[in-house]
Parts: sequence; C-alpha cells; structure tokens
Amino acid sequence: MVSVASVQQLMTPAFTVDIQKVKSNARRMIERCQALGVQLRPHMKTHKTLECADIMTGGSRRCIVVSTLAEARFYADRDFDDILYAYPLPLDKVGACAELTERLEMFHVLVDSEVALAELAKRRLRDGKSWLVWLKVDCNNGRAGVRPEDPMALILAKSIAQCEGMELAGVYVHCGNSYSATGVKEIQAVAQDTTTAVLEFVEKLEKAGVSCPRYSIGSTPSCSHPIPDMGRLTELHPGNYVFYDVQQVMIGSCQMEDVAVRVLTRVIGHYPHRNQLLVDCGWTGLSLHSLGMLPTGYAVIDGHPELKLVGMTQEHGKIEPASGKLDFEKFPLGSFISLIPYHACATAAMHPVYYVHSEGRIVAEWRPTRGW
Amino acid sequence: MVSVASVQQLMTPAFTVDIQKVKSNARRMIERCQALGVQLRPHMKTHKTLECADIMTGGSRRCIVVSTLAEARFYADRDFDDILYAYPLPLDKVGACAELTERLEMFHVLVDSEVALAELAKRRLRDGKSWLVWLKVDCNNGRAGVRPEDPMALILAKSIAQCEGMELAGVYVHCGNSYSATGVKEIQAVAQDTTTAVLEFVEKLEKAGVSCPRYSIGSTPSCSHPIPDMGRLTELHPGNYVFYDVQQVMIGSCQMEDVAVRVLTRVIGHYPHRNQLLVDCGWTGLSLHSLGMLPTGYAVIDGHPELKLVGMTQEHGKIEPASGKLDFEKFPLGSFISLIPYHACATAAMHPVYYVHSEGRIVAEWRPTRGW
Repeated sequence: MVSVASVQQLMTPAFTVDIQKVKSNARRMIERCQALGVQLRPHMKTHKTLECADIMTGGSRRCIVVSTLAEARFYADRDFDDILYAYPLPLDKVGACAELTERLEMFHVLVDSEVALAELAKRRLRDGKSWLVWLKVDCNNGRAGVRPEDPMALILAKSIAQCEGMELAGVYVHCGNSYSATGVKEIQAVAQDTTTAVLEFVEKLEKAGVSCPRYSIGSTPSCSHPIPDMGRLTELHPGNYVFYDVQQVMIGSCQMEDVAVRVLTRVIGHYPHRNQLLVDCGWTGLSLHSLGMLPTGYAVIDGHPELKLVGMTQEHGKIEPASGKLDFEKFPLGSFISLIPYHACATAAMHPVYYVHSEGRIVAEWRPTRGW
Repeated sequence: MVSVASVQQLMTPAFTVDIQKVKSNARRMIERCQALGVQLRPHMKTHKTLECADIMTGGSRRCIVVSTLAEARFYADRDFDDILYAYPLPLDKVGACAELTERLEMFHVLVDSEVALAELAKRRLRDGKSWLVWLKVDCNNGRAGVRPEDPMALILAKSIAQCEGMELAGVYVHCGNSYSATGVKEIQAVAQDTTTAVLEFVEKLEKAGVSCPRYSIGSTPSCSHPIPDMGRLTELHPGNYVFYDVQQVMIGSCQMEDVAVRVLTRVIGHYPHRNQLLVDCGWTGLSLHSLGMLPTGYAVIDGHPELKLVGMTQEHGKIEPASGKLDFEKFPLGSFISLIPYHACATAAMHPVYYVHSEGRIVAEWRPTRGW
C-alpha cells in the first residue's frame, strides 16, 4: 500500500530510498562475490526491512546476518533461514536463541568467550539439534572477538568443536578498521591484513585438527573493493553497501551517485538577519552522526554544494551558505531540500517508514523492525 | 500489560523510567507554576507517551505543547485538547492542522512569517471556527521566530489579529539559549532577559491595540529555576524536566538524583588486553548526543564514577576505567551496567518501549508515538 504517488507529495521529513540504486548496489555486490567465488551473506542492520532483504539475497531469503534478536525474529517470521546472529552472545538471550535454533534449519550464534560457550552448552536443544557456533575473531578492529594470535583463540575453537551438541560453524571477522581508511589503496591494505590473518588462523585450526566450514570477513569498504585473496574466504558479510552514504563516499567505497537514500525536508523559515533558513528536519530525522564535521555540516545538501547544514535540534535544521549572502528567493517556504545522510544506518534507524521511489514515483513503503 | 516483573528480568538494552522520580519532577513543576500563578502547558516532545502526558497534566488532558503533527494526532486521538503545535507552520501540514482545529475545542498553530499566515488565511474552517494562531518570537535564541525588536513582529501580530477567521492566541518564546548557561545564576539571567523581552513586546502589542491572551516562555533550565517576573507571563511550557538528564545536571537545572531515566545494559565481553569491557548498548540504544565529550564519555555510568563509556557503535558500547586497571571480576558477563543519558529526549527517541518501574518492580510499559 502506497499512500502518495510521488516524492513531491510526501510530508516531510521523509526518508526516501531510490529503488534503482538499491538494486544496482545489491547486484554489483552479488556479482563481485560471484566473481570471487565466495558466498555473500548480507548484513541486515542498515535497513532491517523485508523488502530490502529480498533484494540483497536475490530473493533466496537464505544466508543473512543480523545484529539484534529483534531482526533475527523478524526475518525468521518471514521465511528467512540460515540466519547468523553476529553478536557476542548476550546471556539474557540464550533461551530465545535456542528457540530459533530449534525452529530454523540453520540459526547461527557467535561467541568470543568460554563463559558464553558454557552458557550455550548448558542449554540442550530439542530433537538432537546442535548449536551452530561461530567464533568471533578480532583482527585489529578492537571491538568484540578474540585475537587470532591469542592462544585462547585456538583453545576456544577447539572447545566449540569438541563440545557435545555444538558445531564450530564458522569464524567471523568484522574489519571495522576499514572505516579509518581513505581511498581504495588504504581500504585494500586493511582487507589484505584481515584476510591474511583469517586465512592463517584457519590454517592453524586445520593443523590442530579443527575443521571450520566457514570463514567470513565483512565491512562495506573492504567488500566494495575486494582483493583477490578474499576469494580464498568462504563468505563475505557487508551491509551498508545497499544504501551507501556520505561516510562511504569519503572512505572511497563508492561514488556520491551510488548513495540510494535521502532525507527529504522542506523550508519552514527565512531568517535574513542571520543569513539562515530553517528546514523541517532535525536530529530525529537525520541523527547527529556526522557530528557536524563535514565541510557541508551535518549532511551533504543534494544539488547545493554552496549550502551548509550548520545546526540541528530535535525538529529543526539550520542551513546557511558556505560563504556570501543566501538568496532566499531560491528557497521559498515549502520548497524542498534533500539531505544526503552521513551515516545511512543511523539515519534509517530514525524512520518508521522508508518511502521507496523510482525516479520520484513512490513505488513502495518499507517498514523496518526496531528494538532488540 | 507488563511482560516481566522486575528490572533485573529485562532484556537489554532497555530504557527504564523511574515512576516515582517522574511523578516528583512533574509535581514540582506544577507546584512551581501554581506558586508563580501561571498556567503550565507541558511539552510532550521528550517522552511522547499517553501515560507521561497524564502525569504532566495532572490528569486533565488539557493544555499541552507538541513538536510534531504525529504527536498532535496521537494526543487528539486520546481525548487531549487545548493542544499547541509549537512549530513554524509547515506548509504541507496546513490541511492536517485544519482538521485538528475543526475537531478539537482548541488546537493552536504557530507562525513566524506572512507567507505561512497567508497559507492559513486561504484555508477557511468549518462551522465558522477560527484558527488559533500564536506568534513565534525569537528572544536571542536564534532558531525560529521573529525578533521582538524587528518591526515585522508587530506587523505580523496585527495581521494575525485582524485577519478574518483567525485569532491571535498567544506569543511563544523558547529560551533555548538557557542551554548555554551553567548554574542557577546564569540560567536566571537568560530567564530574566527573555521574560523582560516578552513582557515588553506584549506591552507594545497592547499599546498598538492588539490584545494577546497568552504569552509563554519555556525551557527546562529556566522553568526549573523561575524568576519572579515569570509570574507576569500567562504560561510556561517546559518538557524535558519530567525525565531530566545529565545535560540538565550540568546546566544546573536539577540534581543527578532527579534524573528519572536510564539505559540498562549488560556486559557482553571482557578484553583485558585493551583494559575494556563491552556492553550491549550502542548508539541505537543511547544516541550519540553527548558526542563522547563528558568526563565519563558518552554517558554517566550509574554508581561507577570510575568508569568511562569511551566508544559506541551500532549495538556495542566500550567501557574502560578512567585510570588504572579494570577489575573484570566486578563486572562478570551478563551483569548489569546502568547508563544515565546525556540527553533524555534523544535517548527516549531510540526506544519503542519504555519500561516503567517503582523501586525496580516493573509497573508499566509505555509506548511512544514517533514519526511526523
């Protein structure tokens, strides 16, 4: 059900998604993985919708990653399977994970500690099912995971493999440190370091007699510019690429024309005495994720490189020219300004509805899941 | 309906609201306004729930402010009336505002330009109803509004008063500049300047033969420490005070023990090699609004002044000691850490459910409206 016919009729602020760009971004990632000979396991955290998951999986509804239990349940309830909950197993959610494991063909969990593993081991599953357990490995990202050079990594992998009612389903690495890169060369250096570390670790596992069927790295920068060695992995798990955003453009993952999402906003006030106009989008519609540090402030203003979004409160955005006097006649009250988000995951998280368009014609409304 | 009995049973991250503190914060604001002899018109933007609105209005369901059309409709659908949509009238929402004006006893809109006023004037209301129009005035806040010293302010007020099918219902000022204050003395200096400016402007209106039944200022800092002259206004419209937050403590609006909200989170990982632990709350559960600039990072960690929340990604928070080595045994996997938000409005906006408790016992679940 679509409530209006065109983008121009939307009440603002509105989060808009260009379906052609989404499809193109998704297709290119599928083709990249096919060329490398690895399985794509797309991450759902950026959009959290049924429709976009269908596009990213090519309609298979199989082989996805999620970041929350809410997402896992949302997709499981919609006939998705082979779902990896790629989050250090939270002890309050073991019961819910057991239910999903019992219910789905493949529901994967992830651990990086003996404590979490012991909690899993305590919970025996129905019908002789095994827990599918991934080991989270930290290759210089510095968030979750056991470092491959830490002796605990091998010990933990062995524990998983040897524990009754459990399988070592994979090794999972997020190369979030690729977000510090600028340009393809730096992105690929991180991708190479991460891939090499994973391959060496898997070799170490094999030498120790631990078989590991899956080993995966992910991050939109690295998977947008894969290096040949990534073809020696079994899976890749990027997520943001389906939308992309200004951050990804700055890193070098994509071009500005690849960014599929906007926040559409309207001019609600003219304040010539301070050379500013107000728009009806504040941080509830955009998030504060750029910290206002872009040359154009809190976002890029589509088609207006001369403008800067200098301030955001709950429902107001302040725009002024980068220099000189603002020509207010160009931006009458009620006229549109389109913001290109710095961080699509953060902006999408602020919107209960995404307005999906093809060349300005609204073709669908997508409603994401939220919560945990 | 309450799904669990106690805070300890909540899945995390969870936004919790201490009902005793909410009631106490609400009661004190009601008493402050009674002592001053002004009408309290509480702002709903912080919580956006039915239940908290009932507490803030003392059960009257009358005389509130909202920041979005979604809030206006939410409250109108729940028997609230005398609702002020305190936002520079967005031209795409004139039709929706007309419907609300026709339906409610009193639905107030706000303008700060002749253009918006002309759009209102074009739309005649059913049953001879009049638009109730407030003039937004900007007393050194620098966001929306016409400055009282600008000749346009008087012209616009006259236009509203003289326009057929329209009443000048009030003058509205948000002293958001009180957020730059530190300590009661600075807060009260802003409150005094703003109040004086409003009273002078209303006097100017009266001299020009324009009668204005309501004139209101708001902001939690100023209304938490009102000055005597605020008793000469007709209304006050603060909002955040019902929850308060770390920002308000730092400004001097309240004490830390007045802050009614927390984000409850659990430890999900120990990383001794970098002296950090991870918790299951990222920016989806807290927002990035402190920008990490607090002495304790992105939030204050309840009961643990020695800890700092140094990093936030989508679903992960990184905590380390301010100095020295972390005693991991004190924070086993699965144990609770309670975050006091920097900006309650921003944190509440991230949560589809608020878990309301009295001394740790869950007494209600509140579900806010969202969107626009």
